[in-house]
Formats: sequence, structure tokens, C-alpha cells
Amino acid sequence: MSRIAYVNGRYVPHARAQVHIEDRGYQFADGVYEVIAVQGGRLIDAAPHHDRLERSLRELQIVAPMSRAALELVLSETIRRNRVRDGIVYLQITRGVAMRDHAFPTASTRPAVVATARPTKAHTPAMIAAGVKAITTPDIRWSRCDVKSISLLPNCLAKQQAKDAGAFEAWQVDRDGFVTEGTSTNAWIVDGDGNVVTRRVESAILSGITRLVLLDFARQTGIDVVERPFTVTEALAAREAFLTSTTSFVMPIVAIDGKPIGEGRPGPVTLRLRAIYDGHLAPPTSEPVAVPPECAGAA
Amino acid sequence: MSRIAYVNGRYVPHARAQVHIEDRGYQFADGVYEVIAVQGGRLIDAAPHHDRLERSLRELQIVAPMSRAALELVLSETIRRNRVRDGIVYLQITRGVAMRDHAFPTASTRPAVVATARPTKAHTPAMIAAGVKAITTPDIRWSRCDVKSISLLPNCLAKQQAKDAGAFEAWQVDRDGFVTEGTSTNAWIVDGDGNVVTRRVESAILSGITRLVLLDFARQTGIDVVERPFTVTEALAAREAFLTSTTSFVMPIVAIDGKPIGEGRPGPVTLRLRAIYDGHLAPPTSEPVAVPPECAGAA
Repeated sequence: MSRIAYVNGRYVPHARAQVHIEDRGYQFADGVYEVIAVQGGRLIDAAPHHDRLERSLRELQIVAPMSRAALELVLSETIRRNRVRDGIVYLQITRGVAMRDHAFPTASTRPAVVATARPTKAHTPAMIAAGVKAITTPDIRWSRCDVKSISLLPNCLAKQQAKDAGAFEAWQVDRDGFVTEGTSTNAWIVDGDGNVVTRRVESAILSGITRLVLLDFARQTGIDVVERPFTVTEALAAREAFLTSTTSFVMPIVAIDGKPIGEGRPGPVTLRLRAIYDGHLAPPTSEPVAVPPECAGAA
Repeated sequence: MSRIAYVNGRYVPHARAQVHIEDRGYQFADGVYEVIAVQGGRLIDAAPHHDRLERSLRELQIVAPMSRAALELVLSETIRRNRVRDGIVYLQITRGVAMRDHAFPTASTRPAVVATARPTKAHTPAMIAAGVKAITTPDIRWSRCDVKSISLLPNCLAKQQAKDAGAFEAWQVDRDGFVTEGTSTNAWIVDGDGNVVTRRVESAILSGITRLVLLDFARQTGIDVVERPFTVTEALAAREAFLTSTTSFVMPIVAIDGKPIGEGRPGPVTLRLRAIYDGHLAPPTSEPVAVPPECAGAA
């Protein structure tokens, strides 16, 4: 089956899915995007993704190209045409095509809309048990990381730096030594007091939807969560560390900058949160989430 | 005559000039660009533009898609096919097309190359005499503005802010109160001692080619030039202010944040530098640069 992409009103073969060279997304990174998980054919947490998309558009003064209902239809249709059961759908909206000029084009310029969908591989129990490694790197990004823009060059450079170091992710560090977030994930630790800690949402980080949902679940479950910045030093001394994202869900971090975190393997709080989140991804008709026995007493 | 664009090896009608939706330029702003002035059919200062392009590519670890000679041929041919005598040629190189993933794609991924050319309107003496207005705004960009990347969203936002305020340009200001540069231009003042002042090149600003060339000319002419940061307060109290860029050349600034600079009209040093630079743009066979009499004694 060949892939199909949605491009400005048409469903076209992926190989021939193109945009104009003067699309402002291509010349200025003047656009926003969302990645939404698809599990069992269902969009996961579509509503907060749309909320965030609408906020990003507002912050950049890009007029929404269509109603939320119409966008939802485009996403569903893109998923259907690509027969994605478990995977992701990607949506990008730019300010549209106009003769190159930094200032915004006239109000009549129509935003450009692109959507793609593809299956992704499920995380095996072995992957979760192994966890992933992270490095730290100075955060060199702009001051508006709360906007989910396609201006992602620094994120790419940092992710490549992680890959070169044999790590999965790079935790970016602000000039005061505090971790902001990963290049495409939010950063979490379990501190010495057993609190789950993640940076509060402000302009230095993106309000991750997995982060948002997990915060709710953790609080509902009685896990102590504190939203505050933490330093690299604190992360290295933490009991546990993990990351969250639309594609990685809850992923244990077992080492940072080559130094083992806690016991150097996924910790009980992380695994408990992973199990809770996996339950959220399961079809609504499934059995209640089973928390692994080794984690039942955690946190 | 319809416009022609160069896109990945082919010359195509501008209206149908397209790139793939998974070009990393479109999804990640993972690319670089140059704008070179064309005057009388000649490329102005092509060599330093190519030097800077090659540096930008190196800094991002993008392999040059072709030799400098081959790129020069693409630019010349794009100019020729669009019959541009006085205007600009635009060149963009991205890391190429690959399935969306922040980390770099495999080494076999070919960088994407796009070039366009178009005529631009000459500045009339009245435009120079009127000068332009600037505003100041916090510099919210990333830390590697020395790389001429297409990650230009913050520049667009600031330029629009200027436009909304009835100004031509926004001077971006770092957290210590020093002007970095305009959104697409370099920033200069003539200080109380009569020195021409512009920020030295480091990671917070782009090494503008017009800036570079003008620095040389100014020094050759015996004008005192100091490369150092200056604050907004100093700019507001300056004798003169101006900006430089590939498309604006040397443009007087007559007001910043609504406050007149000096006499509120283009100053003698600025006009002298403009005349010198205009001479540089003129065909090689032309008469020596005539410095307007009212500027002859300046600086």
C-alpha cells in the first residue's frame, strides 16, 4: 500500500506530495505543527492537541485555515487512507505562500495545511526494561518554545548530538543550569524525597500533551508531583529519570551524560507511571490497568 | 515573461516550483540561504556570500550539494533566465528529503537546492533623503544567529511588529540592553565622538556582507569605525543611525521608537557611506564615485 498525504485540500500519493518553494514554512519556518498518537485506530488526546494547535496559531497570528471539526476530519481521513492502527498523524500549518518578505503577507494569503500518517513500532517490554540514555547540552533555542513552531533547527542539532553520543535524547540546559526539556520530549526526575518533578510550563518549554495527561493521572493516583525547575546536578543525583512524549509515551532514562541514574535501570515510580499511561492508550473496552506487582508499592 | 526557478537540478516555471513536504527545510527549518544583489547583471560580492554559505553549511554539518563553481553557474543561469539586471538572486540549501526524524538522515540523503531571481526597485533619491524609521524589540532568537539559517520565525515576528508600528525595521536588543541587529539588516550608529559604530561579529549577529564590505571602504576612506556593542540609550542619543543589507544597501534611520535621531534626517556620515557603497554597486567602467558636496567634509 502506498502512503497518502493531505496537501492543501487534496489527498495525494506521498511521493508526489509537494508544497511551493515560497511557502513561508520553507523559507521562514513560519508555521506550527502537531503530532498525535493513534492507538487501535483512535486519536489519543486529540482535544488538548487541537487546543495547543489553536494557541500556537494565535500566538503567531496565523488564522486557522479551517474549523476544528474540519481539521479533525482531515486527520481521520489521512489515518484511514493510510490504514494506520497504531502510529502517528502529523499536521503542519504554515502562513501560506507569498513572495519572500519577512513581514506577514496580505490577509488574503491562505495558510497551507499538510497532514501525513504512518504506523510506528510498539515499544517492546525489553525496550522499556532497558530504558534509554540522555545527554545534556546548552539550550540555544529561541525564547518562545511554548509555541510548537517548525523552527526546529536547534532541536535537530541537539538530537543529532545525542545520537552521536549513543544516547536517545538531549536534555537542554538553560544558562542558570536548569534543565528545560528534551529536543522532542519533556524531562522528569524522581527527586531524593520521592517527588516526581518536572519543569512548570512557561516560555522555555512546550506544554507536552503526554506531560499534561500524565500529571493528571499521577495526581489522581496520589503520586506527589511538583512542577519546578531542576538542575543537571539534581538530575544526576535523582532516584529516577524519565521522559514523556507523544511517540515515546513514558520512557525510563537510565543514564545521563554517561552516569547511571539511581540503580542504572528503570525505577519503580517510572514503571508505575508507564503502566498507568499504557492503560490510557489501551482501547476503552479493555480491562483496568494492571500495575506490575514490583511497582505496586512505589511512590 | 514568466519567472523561472531552479529546483533540485531543474529549471521550472515559478508557479510550479515545488519541494517535497518532507524536505527538512519545511519540517525543521534545517537549511541555510543567501541573498545576493544583482546590479547591471553582475552579482555583487559573490565571493564573500559563497564563503559565508559554505561556513553556514559546515556549522550545520550539511554537505555542500555541488562545487562553488557549479553553484555560481546555477545562480548565473537563474539570473539569465529571469532577465534580472538589477535585483536579487536567492539561494536556499536544506539537508534534503527524509522521513521526519529530528536527527540527521543517512549520509546518502542529498541536500535540496532552490534558487530564484527577481528584479527589485531602485531606491530613489527621495527615499534616501526621507530615511526610514526603526523600533526596538527584545531579541528572542536562538544563540547561533551567526549561521544564516532559514529558522527565521522570530525575525518575521519582529519585522511584522515594525511594520505594525509604521517602521521599516526592528532593532533587536539583547538581555543586557545592547542592540544586536535588525531582522534582516545590520545596525549602525555614529556616536557622540563621530565614530561609526557597529556590533562586532559573534554568535548573536550575522556577518552581513554589506557590513563587511562597508567596514573595509570606511577604513580605506579614513572614517573611524569601531566594532563594539551599543545600547538603545546610546542609539537614541547618537548623531546618526543607519542600517545595511544586501537589499537596502546603506539606509539612513531617522527615528528609533518614534524619537528622532540627530537632526531627524539622514546625517552626513551616513550619506557619505551610502555614496561610497553606491559607487561599489556601479558598473566597473563608470566614473569614480562622486561624494555629494554636502558630505565631503563629514566624519
